[in-house]
Amino acid sequence: MLAHLTQDAAPSTPTSDQNKVFRTELTPLSFLRRTAALFPDTTAVVDGNRGTAYSYWQFAGRVNRLASALQAHGLRPADCVAFLCPNIPPMVEAHFAVPAAGGILVAINTLLNAAEIAAILRHSGARFLFVDHELYSILTPLNLDGITVIRVDDTGLPDDPYETFLAKGSPEELDPRLADEEETISLSYTSGTTGQPKGVTYTHRGAYLNALGNVIETGLTPDSVYLWTLPMFHCNGWCFPWSVVAAAGTQVCLRKVEPALVWDIFEAYGVTHYNGAPTVHTLIANHPAAHRLARPVTVMVGGAPPSPALLAQLRVLNVQPIQVYGLTETYAPITVRAWRQEWSALATEQQDRLLARQGQGRIVSDLLRVVDEAMDDVPRDGQTMGEVVMRGNIVMKRYHDDPAATAEAFRGGWFHSGDLAVMHPDGSIELRDRKKDVIISGGENISTIEVEHALCAHPAVLECAVIAVPDDFWGERPKAFVTLKSTQRATSEELIAFCREHLAHFKCPVAVEFGEIPRTSTGKVQKFVLREREWTGYDKRIY
Amino acid sequence: MLAHLTQDAAPSTPTSDQNKVFRTELTPLSFLRRTAALFPDTTAVVDGNRGTAYSYWQFAGRVNRLASALQAHGLRPADCVAFLCPNIPPMVEAHFAVPAAGGILVAINTLLNAAEIAAILRHSGARFLFVDHELYSILTPLNLDGITVIRVDDTGLPDDPYETFLAKGSPEELDPRLADEEETISLSYTSGTTGQPKGVTYTHRGAYLNALGNVIETGLTPDSVYLWTLPMFHCNGWCFPWSVVAAAGTQVCLRKVEPALVWDIFEAYGVTHYNGAPTVHTLIANHPAAHRLARPVTVMVGGAPPSPALLAQLRVLNVQPIQVYGLTETYAPITVRAWRQEWSALATEQQDRLLARQGQGRIVSDLLRVVDEAMDDVPRDGQTMGEVVMRGNIVMKRYHDDPAATAEAFRGGWFHSGDLAVMHPDGSIELRDRKKDVIISGGENISTIEVEHALCAHPAVLECAVIAVPDDFWGERPKAFVTLKSTQRATSEELIAFCREHLAHFKCPVAVEFGEIPRTSTGKVQKFVLREREWTGYDKRIY
Repeated sequence: MLAHLTQDAAPSTPTSDQNKVFRTELTPLSFLRRTAALFPDTTAVVDGNRGTAYSYWQFAGRVNRLASALQAHGLRPADCVAFLCPNIPPMVEAHFAVPAAGGILVAINTLLNAAEIAAILRHSGARFLFVDHELYSILTPLNLDGITVIRVDDTGLPDDPYETFLAKGSPEELDPRLADEEETISLSYTSGTTGQPKGVTYTHRGAYLNALGNVIETGLTPDSVYLWTLPMFHCNGWCFPWSVVAAAGTQVCLRKVEPALVWDIFEAYGVTHYNGAPTVHTLIANHPAAHRLARPVTVMVGGAPPSPALLAQLRVLNVQPIQVYGLTETYAPITVRAWRQEWSALATEQQDRLLARQGQGRIVSDLLRVVDEAMDDVPRDGQTMGEVVMRGNIVMKRYHDDPAATAEAFRGGWFHSGDLAVMHPDGSIELRDRKKDVIISGGENISTIEVEHALCAHPAVLECAVIAVPDDFWGERPKAFVTLKSTQRATSEELIAFCREHLAHFKCPVAVEFGEIPRTSTGKVQKFVLREREWTGYDKRIY
Repeated sequence: MLAHLTQDAAPSTPTSDQNKVFRTELTPLSFLRRTAALFPDTTAVVDGNRGTAYSYWQFAGRVNRLASALQAHGLRPADCVAFLCPNIPPMVEAHFAVPAAGGILVAINTLLNAAEIAAILRHSGARFLFVDHELYSILTPLNLDGITVIRVDDTGLPDDPYETFLAKGSPEELDPRLADEEETISLSYTSGTTGQPKGVTYTHRGAYLNALGNVIETGLTPDSVYLWTLPMFHCNGWCFPWSVVAAAGTQVCLRKVEPALVWDIFEAYGVTHYNGAPTVHTLIANHPAAHRLARPVTVMVGGAPPSPALLAQLRVLNVQPIQVYGLTETYAPITVRAWRQEWSALATEQQDRLLARQGQGRIVSDLLRVVDEAMDDVPRDGQTMGEVVMRGNIVMKRYHDDPAATAEAFRGGWFHSGDLAVMHPDGSIELRDRKKDVIISGGENISTIEVEHALCAHPAVLECAVIAVPDDFWGERPKAFVTLKSTQRATSEELIAFCREHLAHFKCPVAVEFGEIPRTSTGKVQKFVLREREWTGYDKRIY
């Protein structure tokens, strides 16, 4: 216990501008301070691949080292620090150390290609880039002038450049730097509808409140063991790096979702929680190692509506699903549709209908609305479609350095999701279609416009249209409709291969169909005609 | 379900000054809006004496009626609305309706006498007073000019004046009035050390955050059933009227704690949670009807340190205690010392030692410090005593209309508890003594100075000193040491009876001892000499 004395749990005397005894700026950093003080010996982070673990006392020391090393390397307030890593312990450390140093965390999607990564580094103005050894080679073509690059070998050994960087820092806690809880804690890039990356800005306040919401709605406690199946680069892992620390639980990191290993870890560590898109849950639930677990595992299912069959399958395994819905712009889940005990008595068909709904705002959110073009609420009839709009403490602060897109998204004083839904008489919303040209595949957003731009760059392509088509595993996949130039030839395979040279692979079409593209009399592409054809037999136009 | 359409769940369009899409002022009122929308048919409030219940839809309608009726009767923003009632449904309604109307709730201790009540009405400037029929006669001697008094018959029937008042209001939700989450939601009066009532001011922000903390730390869910054993006039029932609504649970009201009825209600309603001072838990646990409950009941034990024997007794009954510590100035509990599974393996004596500690700050609190006179932290040695000081979002905003007392309490940028404690190497605090002349009896604060003033008003008393003496049931009781005027005679019984004419009965001495009062050479009363004598055999000077 004496060793803990070096870890000073007592907060510093407030600076003169923080003169309200009754007010502390809300920040997830306070969770680590408290948990490290109260639960120093509890396991904070496990490396599920290596089998090593850090206690909260060790974890806090590492966080403090990273924070002070960043400052020693010239980090200035509000500088961006990018991480391009899978779910490894340094990613959890980054969620505390970067804001503790006064910086802004930019966790980059590891599925992106070099050009896409470059665009994010440029747009955010990142001054540091921590990159996992497996992804290091992707940086080769990039000009990284002005960016301090640190390779993360994920060995935890002294010769790992990440560990060398940490060794330069101090395990002592830095003085709190936060003057205002509405300061930015992170940028989450989303391709949105235009293919231009947009930096969704989260605040310390929003992250703190959303973390408390997660603790409440998934029942995290000091006995919880959270498994990282959801990428931390997605909306900061839905704020769970902060949530698990708030609850003093344990988080188990995994470089990638390998179902056999996931089942081993379920048993070895007594996992109580994990999250993911339906695709991830399907992968886990259908593995040969799948079996009913002795104690319940609580999971959030988001990113796309899960099928009732999947939810039923999970419950058989003693995995208790909580259906959620949200966007990058809402710190990920902003609605919750928890399984209710009383539904057990209903017929399967009724259960399916109830489960298909997205529910309503979470405990830390305002209630969502479904509105018409004039921003009036649609009737609560379960039939009239309108756009889902949100506001409140878990809506993003803005798109980074993009006032026009922010103003457009916030018109009328509400964030416009671009998702079309009905409002049921019980006040719950149910998604039906999407206003925006976005495909959601395995939880990843794909801008159809971005795919169309890539295709149109092929010399044989005259014009094209990309839509989502349903897919039982991925939810949605992109399909391209292409008209070739009359003088040119190209096969589906050639066009798909061409796309894979220019786009992250998950964004590329799974199929290409050649022919005339339907248009209005004024020449506008009628994607709905294509969708109607591809979605025959489905009662919605999203999956 | 159609009936719910009249209850518009969609929040109003924000007013022009609330122009941040990403910010909603934190207020517990948002919990009711959300829960009424999502759980309209769930039972919100049960009258445990009458056996009647209101659903969330009904409850929200009643709250809205009370709020709009208050406005119709001339309530202006920040007007105080006093409630002098036991734990009955109107008390829960007041916690939402008064702030929804823009007012400030003043829940008055029902144990006070007429003069004490008058002082609070005067100091708060209350413009409304809702008073339970059983307490109505206490108002007879008072001048209530300028105060609208409404009697609450607690029948729920149309001829109950409270119901008549509600009937004048509208069940529609009022437009949100809150411009700033740091506005005052309630005043909780505490006698403090001087006997002058002090109005401890809570904010909407603090109440919201503390409510979320309660949900997390006691595990409230939509399946929870909370029994009102703790008075709602104590620190707004430790914020549980708001917490239970946040979680969409059910709260069961009880006019008073009758253990036989409590045990009936445990079974009849499937109670999962209740709170109270050790005295209340002792009363419940020792009743002949006490038996091990089939499902665990989670309880917070606060107001005074519980004995290990009591905690062990509760666990045998399947009542899981969470030890907490706080003051009126900290929205009640600000530390938590939850039972840890690993302690089960320890020897009883070790368990006792660990349980005797007050722990550390709750999830929504800053960490507490133990400091010396120079505001430096005492060593973490479990031996050096210092004063417990607090800051953060669950510290009061101020003492109402008392800048001098506020400045004194907040000196050095921290709230000074007046409690003396040691800091253990593991960062947990343990109370040892009290700097302030306060007696805590059955969870109620008694100012020794106030009792002394009452005694000295007796014509036979020359001088007196009042201290706490240990009591196995009440924790502490006041004992008076009196020197009579040489020409006068008085018995203990006469002096106690005299006190009961002027003070609330729980404040009156249980014993009077006559003789010389020990003084310093400068004439200052040496209460510690008296305490040493009375507390021989105890290792602390508080109970």
